[in-house]
Amino acid sequence: MTTRIFGDIPGVVEGDEFQDRQHLHDVGIHPPLQAGISGTANEGADSIVLSGGYEDDSDLGDVIVYTGHGGRDPATERQVRHQTLTRGNMALARSQVLGLPVRVSRGHQHPSLLSPTSGYRYGGLYRVEDHWYETGRSGLGIYRFRLVKLTADLFGPATREDSESLGPAARKLVTVQRLVRDTAVARQVKEIHAFACQMCGERLTSPAGAYAEAAHIRPLGAPHHGPDILTNVLCLCPNHHVLFDLGAVSIQDDFSLIGMDGILRRHRRHLVDLVHIQYHRERYTCGQIVPFFQAESR
Amino acid sequence: MTTRIFGDIPGVVEGDEFQDRQHLHDVGIHPPLQAGISGTANEGADSIVLSGGYEDDSDLGDVIVYTGHGGRDPATERQVRHQTLTRGNMALARSQVLGLPVRVSRGHQHPSLLSPTSGYRYGGLYRVEDHWYETGRSGLGIYRFRLVKLTADLFGPATREDSESLGPAARKLVTVQRLVRDTAVARQVKEIHAFACQMCGERLTSPAGAYAEAAHIRPLGAPHHGPDILTNVLCLCPNHHVLFDLGAVSIQDDFSLIGMDGILRRHRRHLVDLVHIQYHRERYTCGQIVPFFQAESR
Repeated sequence: MTTRIFGDIPGVVEGDEFQDRQHLHDVGIHPPLQAGISGTANEGADSIVLSGGYEDDSDLGDVIVYTGHGGRDPATERQVRHQTLTRGNMALARSQVLGLPVRVSRGHQHPSLLSPTSGYRYGGLYRVEDHWYETGRSGLGIYRFRLVKLTADLFGPATREDSESLGPAARKLVTVQRLVRDTAVARQVKEIHAFACQMCGERLTSPAGAYAEAAHIRPLGAPHHGPDILTNVLCLCPNHHVLFDLGAVSIQDDFSLIGMDGILRRHRRHLVDLVHIQYHRERYTCGQIVPFFQAESR
Repeated sequence: MTTRIFGDIPGVVEGDEFQDRQHLHDVGIHPPLQAGISGTANEGADSIVLSGGYEDDSDLGDVIVYTGHGGRDPATERQVRHQTLTRGNMALARSQVLGLPVRVSRGHQHPSLLSPTSGYRYGGLYRVEDHWYETGRSGLGIYRFRLVKLTADLFGPATREDSESLGPAARKLVTVQRLVRDTAVARQVKEIHAFACQMCGERLTSPAGAYAEAAHIRPLGAPHHGPDILTNVLCLCPNHHVLFDLGAVSIQDDFSLIGMDGILRRHRRHLVDLVHIQYHRERYTCGQIVPFFQAESR
């Protein structure tokens, strides 16, 4: 491939089947013949293939928790080292940061109702919503990526769409930007901190009043299942919310900040649970807690 | 009402009909008996009623462009002054900033297929996605609010939901946070500026690389229909993206910044169209261009 294509491939639609990896390569859905992740750390990942090789994968159709590659002994296929945020893993993380769409194909060996009975089936476009590090079933560290299906007609044709063409097929994608949740908890944490970021102290103001975001420390929803309670949220500016979600900043048990100078600003009416902070630090903070720097290959 | 309820009212479901405003008041859907907007500048708006009084309203069902109140002569009901960002208008803007849900009810006088044949019908929860100032059909300034329906099962039950209970009915809301669009244009503007914010120069970095957002100057989609081209985007950090979208910052024709010190950082490979900058400034920048400060009443 001379140019990496992100998004749909002209002439291929969701559900199309291909007899083998060569065929997936030839039509341009998944360029590499062996690797499960197509892409580079610099450009991002454009495509993945689910082929049943990773016991930690979880595929619910619209949501996939995909296990990164690396750390396995090529002879036995067993994991023998921690995975690292390199190569395909970094490519998927980069697609998250850049908001790039990732093509997903399923092989017949992959356990899912959406898998074909033979060969491979193209499953459409997903976005990488999250990535983190955890201990897999082998007892060794793995990277996991949460992919969520992009749906072309998410809101129907009448809504604001920020629609855009991705590649020559000009498929319309519907996205929602920064719809901030509101719960009593979110309102409460913003009020306690008077809309000032607990990391940098910045308070954004607008003609319609102050703006801040309530950031969950341990994420809501599967597989993290963080609680939506005051001890699991922080009041952050959008910049530090992004950096916190990406693991660029985190918090030590003494509330000093990781990845930036300073200490978390606290308030006596807002206790923060150290168990949730540890959860974030262990899974999202690269290079601080877990060994990220071994060489490996998939 | 002693406590303002945001979100659903227990025992009332979408489609329920009410014979008059007193009835809407009694069940708690829309507390005030006359005003079209329920809420305060401090708390935000919890409910609106569409009753056909504003010729500039536009109701597509899932998307409503709602005209603010004020500026009308009570005797003739004709607009005689510019509207201002005060009272109910400020309450709706505040709901946008805080991400609060707004109940929408339609009266039989309001021209929509969703209006009842008599009385009022509750139409469900919406979020305020945007607000701006423009010249209405009367030739005088009006505020407009773009409301988008909140859908409980937007992604189906399998996806990450950040679900949360709003009020005693514990309705589940599905939200998507900060799904960043990617187009060739967005990638291009980020690369040209090396992911540095064109307003503050900040460049967010993470273990998965640099992060920035492509902000459209004239918004995409109805009714703005800004083009998705390089001359209509800026490379911004999340903080300045929020502030730009809320009209807290904007740009003069000489590229000096409004609402903050400094000048827009430019690059010879990235021309910015002054026509789009003027569009943003006139509609989103409060108090800079248009007269916002007359007293008025609805």
